[in-house]
Amino acid sequence: MKESKKKKCIIHFEPSGLKTEVPPGTVLLEATHKVGIYLSSICGGDGYCGKCKVIIDEGQFQSRPTTLLTPDEVRENVVLACQTKVLSDMTITVPKSHALQAGQILMDTDAQRFRELAGEAEAGVFEFDPLVRKLCVEMSAPTVHDHTADHERLYVAIREQIDAPIMQTGFRILQSLSKLLCKANYKVAVTMGRRGGTTEVMEVEPGKRCKTNFAVAVDLGTTTVVAHLIDLTNATTIDTEAVYNSQINFGEDYIRRIIYAEENNAFDEMQSRIVHDVNNLIVTLAARQRIDLQDITAIICAGNTAMVHFLLNLDPTRIRKEPYIASVSFMPPIRAAEAGIQINKRGLLYCLPSVAAYVGSDIVAGVLTTRVYTKKALSLFIDIGTNGEVVLGNRDWLVCASSSAGPAFEGSGVKHGMRAGAGAIEKLTIRADGSIEFKTIADTHPVGICGSGLLDTLAELFMNGIIDRTGRFKPNEDKRLTEGNEGLQFQLVLPDDDHQAIVITQADINNLIRSKAGVFAAIRVLMDSTQTKAEDLEAIYLAGGFGNFLNIQQAVTIGMLPDVPLEKIQFVGNTSIAGAKTVLLSREALEAAEKIAKSMTYFDLMSYPGYMDEFIKAGFLPHTDLSLFPTVKLAAERT
Amino acid sequence: MKESKKKKCIIHFEPSGLKTEVPPGTVLLEATHKVGIYLSSICGGDGYCGKCKVIIDEGQFQSRPTTLLTPDEVRENVVLACQTKVLSDMTITVPKSHALQAGQILMDTDAQRFRELAGEAEAGVFEFDPLVRKLCVEMSAPTVHDHTADHERLYVAIREQIDAPIMQTGFRILQSLSKLLCKANYKVAVTMGRRGGTTEVMEVEPGKRCKTNFAVAVDLGTTTVVAHLIDLTNATTIDTEAVYNSQINFGEDYIRRIIYAEENNAFDEMQSRIVHDVNNLIVTLAARQRIDLQDITAIICAGNTAMVHFLLNLDPTRIRKEPYIASVSFMPPIRAAEAGIQINKRGLLYCLPSVAAYVGSDIVAGVLTTRVYTKKALSLFIDIGTNGEVVLGNRDWLVCASSSAGPAFEGSGVKHGMRAGAGAIEKLTIRADGSIEFKTIADTHPVGICGSGLLDTLAELFMNGIIDRTGRFKPNEDKRLTEGNEGLQFQLVLPDDDHQAIVITQADINNLIRSKAGVFAAIRVLMDSTQTKAEDLEAIYLAGGFGNFLNIQQAVTIGMLPDVPLEKIQFVGNTSIAGAKTVLLSREALEAAEKIAKSMTYFDLMSYPGYMDEFIKAGFLPHTDLSLFPTVKLAAERT
Repeated sequence: MKESKKKKCIIHFEPSGLKTEVPPGTVLLEATHKVGIYLSSICGGDGYCGKCKVIIDEGQFQSRPTTLLTPDEVRENVVLACQTKVLSDMTITVPKSHALQAGQILMDTDAQRFRELAGEAEAGVFEFDPLVRKLCVEMSAPTVHDHTADHERLYVAIREQIDAPIMQTGFRILQSLSKLLCKANYKVAVTMGRRGGTTEVMEVEPGKRCKTNFAVAVDLGTTTVVAHLIDLTNATTIDTEAVYNSQINFGEDYIRRIIYAEENNAFDEMQSRIVHDVNNLIVTLAARQRIDLQDITAIICAGNTAMVHFLLNLDPTRIRKEPYIASVSFMPPIRAAEAGIQINKRGLLYCLPSVAAYVGSDIVAGVLTTRVYTKKALSLFIDIGTNGEVVLGNRDWLVCASSSAGPAFEGSGVKHGMRAGAGAIEKLTIRADGSIEFKTIADTHPVGICGSGLLDTLAELFMNGIIDRTGRFKPNEDKRLTEGNEGLQFQLVLPDDDHQAIVITQADINNLIRSKAGVFAAIRVLMDSTQTKAEDLEAIYLAGGFGNFLNIQQAVTIGMLPDVPLEKIQFVGNTSIAGAKTVLLSREALEAAEKIAKSMTYFDLMSYPGYMDEFIKAGFLPHTDLSLFPTVKLAAERT
Repeated sequence: MKESKKKKCIIHFEPSGLKTEVPPGTVLLEATHKVGIYLSSICGGDGYCGKCKVIIDEGQFQSRPTTLLTPDEVRENVVLACQTKVLSDMTITVPKSHALQAGQILMDTDAQRFRELAGEAEAGVFEFDPLVRKLCVEMSAPTVHDHTADHERLYVAIREQIDAPIMQTGFRILQSLSKLLCKANYKVAVTMGRRGGTTEVMEVEPGKRCKTNFAVAVDLGTTTVVAHLIDLTNATTIDTEAVYNSQINFGEDYIRRIIYAEENNAFDEMQSRIVHDVNNLIVTLAARQRIDLQDITAIICAGNTAMVHFLLNLDPTRIRKEPYIASVSFMPPIRAAEAGIQINKRGLLYCLPSVAAYVGSDIVAGVLTTRVYTKKALSLFIDIGTNGEVVLGNRDWLVCASSSAGPAFEGSGVKHGMRAGAGAIEKLTIRADGSIEFKTIADTHPVGICGSGLLDTLAELFMNGIIDRTGRFKPNEDKRLTEGNEGLQFQLVLPDDDHQAIVITQADINNLIRSKAGVFAAIRVLMDSTQTKAEDLEAIYLAGGFGNFLNIQQAVTIGMLPDVPLEKIQFVGNTSIAGAKTVLLSREALEAAEKIAKSMTYFDLMSYPGYMDEFIKAGFLPHTDLSLFPTVKLAAERT
């Protein structure tokens, strides 16, 4: 297609009826932004998330080839807006469903969880007392008989509304305070931020504009960065968005990224990537909700210790070297702008506290969210991400460990593994007749397998006798068991004219077993060293980005979780962001998080004598010691 | 004298034997600095303080004419180093006495007072706990079993040494902390600064360099700015210096300066002048003591409310307009660099708290120094400067007022008035035979009269019947009573061939009486409204820049101070800087100062019904109501 000689191309958008003019050559995604249509674009316009699909009804365009479109979609003129240039006047249909499609699955779960928490908060678990708040402050004007200086007058009035024994105010604000108060007739909106044991007067504005105050909560994942936009005046989540962590080019896991940064002196680059990702999320959320960035006064982050170090450009190098030390575990709030985050220029950046180099603030957030630390009975909290962290305890004590068994359940190191996104198999059953039933996210043709699907696959292969207790494929007549480039593989989805097969390889299975063995061995170490028995556990909370359809039973079947009555096991989704939001909305929750982080005892598994033995024993399905898995044994015998 | 064609002139200094090379045309004062001889130069090299006198033994020079040298001095080749250019090789004698001559009188008093206070501190009045301190901090290095993060490791170690429940650390320090601790083998020098209820980690340096830590205390006077250099490791005053406040071009008193700044939008200029003065003092002190500016980690200021506002560029305009309000009374510590003060780039600037627009932190410092606020019995504290502030009270209550009666006792508005400097008459007696005996500061030929001399003059004129009770000259045959350009005047020092007469005019006397009347009326208002009688007063503390030879008796004679037994009256010198130093050296003293500032009740005299009446009654010598001054009455009858 030849580029048009027109100077301006008119783009009509359906079904909204919006239109705009752009120069020829403009990327279609930008044109949608121009009229205020914000398509989901978690890859930031790099063409690999496949979320910005639109249909070209009319007009000329130039689109880069992509594997993210099915032949059917290509025939129907579906394109990726980020990969398509405008060449003439056009009419475009933006499918409503596309804008908030598959990428939201991970986040809707969190949002729901948060709403529950907000409910709890109202019910009195945590007092609503956000870390940053705006107050309408009215003072009586000074008189000859009430000559209190303006600064102290303001403090007195603030203290009538909130508990703030120690207050701080920036020099520039003090310099302009008198004129401002006088002009505003002593009626002002004051933005107050909690900073350690003090409260900062962040901003003083004339008038009563105190009903507009937003914050962003961020889960800094090694693979995915998730952000929620929060209205601080009423504790509601307005919108959510996610992007892939663009550090991924420097390594799948954070240890590799630290090594890369060290070898290439790329710490600044590493920071600028993650800051760019976070800013992208903020700008997208703000634009979509038509919120001024200046009205976002706080950002709160939870994540593993390395990611928080990267974000703040704290030295992360000793995280990976014995004795495995973080620079900072209890990060004080800083001006967000100091880290390059684009919110209100005096807005604050909070990080939840962490426990150790390998037990980050995401885990503290998880313990906070599940309330393990408040219960009399014992609970387990398990977060399966790029690492597998485990916490055991109750209101009296908490122990924790991290297994670096690898991100297989995040789809990494698995041939057809993928994150919980559109086209991912998230649920899979092998029927008695050998046929396979599955469900994909967004019900599209399967393009890979996400965490919950991998869990199902491993369990189903085992329960149906396709693999043995060591995970090895049994000799089998099934046509699905074929020889691939990397040895034996099992076709979960058979190929057709338009699609390749979706397979699970022997190497994949080994990786998955290693991951589950790492997690289970960590659980065993914590339980053994505290003399906890499976029957002592009142609850097991499983967190992570598995997707919506995690089958708890299968997690027991493969021997990843202890064999306890299923009603005791609960999938809790992304507790990292849920915890971050809770802390954002309640100073009491921040104090609780700090208490959790301080009181948790960290076990370094590598230096723990029994760990390797436990790891080897857990390398079987479900385990060498079948007495630990009575229900699985029965099920396996049944087949 | 012709300028030499030499490229370099060699300057020999005697008696030190030091020498240096400078290009011809160099100002001699700079040459002295080059070899490390720091002459006192309170005017900053502008040629009007007369302090940098040196003797030219040999060599060619060019010197601007000045009235500050006597004909004798000119004959002896004495020059002002700041007004003299080098033209050839030279030999110079620097009189030892000159370097620390007359300008020091004001300060020696303070220094002595401070030493006394330091003694008190050691005796347990205030715990030695400076606002900024350096700690040698040693930590055990992390191990697998002690994986506390570096930031928290540092905090734990600091808290083993000092009480710091809430600590803060700047982001840049956190970013470099891990590498630094590791490199320094976990042995560091930490600079800690108190900031409100928190303690800031200002700097972390490798090694054990914690014995070098200095601060500067400053008295921000309307006319003179005084600075003391303090060694924070042992609470000693190392050196002192003073400069004239260079805002003086914009008005003698601060009300005029505020008006000037408003009319000319010259607030920045006003700030830059006072900041320049303070920086001058700091650089001079540091250079003279060979101290690196980076080792000065704190500056503490006391002064009237307007001067503190000028220094910080806080809005001072409402100080002069009803209802007379300050912007800030309790100024939080800020980074000194934020105000343009040249000390350590992370050094802190503290200001003592003030009470009201016209009762500044200098008065709070005075109450702290005299300990009026701790005593069971009642005391009066009176500070005579450009204004006259009065405090009455005890450990249960404090009331205060400010009389804007003008700076006559500072020599302003008095024909031959001057500050307590070289050549000022500081003591004067009229003998029975009519002859006059006097003493000048530094025993030079008299060039004017300072505060204590003016007090003596007024009292002696009155007691010797030269003026009547209204201050009017009585008809008199004395040849000293002459008609000047401004009416009748009395020649205190008769003219000779080389010198003019030093006179006191009728207008001078009226000004002095107005000043003393303002102060006494303020005392009466405070005493009346609290039903305090003169006999209830256990002590009267008189502060101000009068000089060393203040005659307490004369202050009663003219009716400025209540007529109490003389042993109850004490001249306490510059309590502003003494209080500033005490606060600098003890957090407890800071807390005491804050308590004083909070608890003092301010009386606005202008809106107080009885004030004008009291002012008129006090406009007589000593007063219309002689029963208030029984001892003076007797003395007057005696003449």
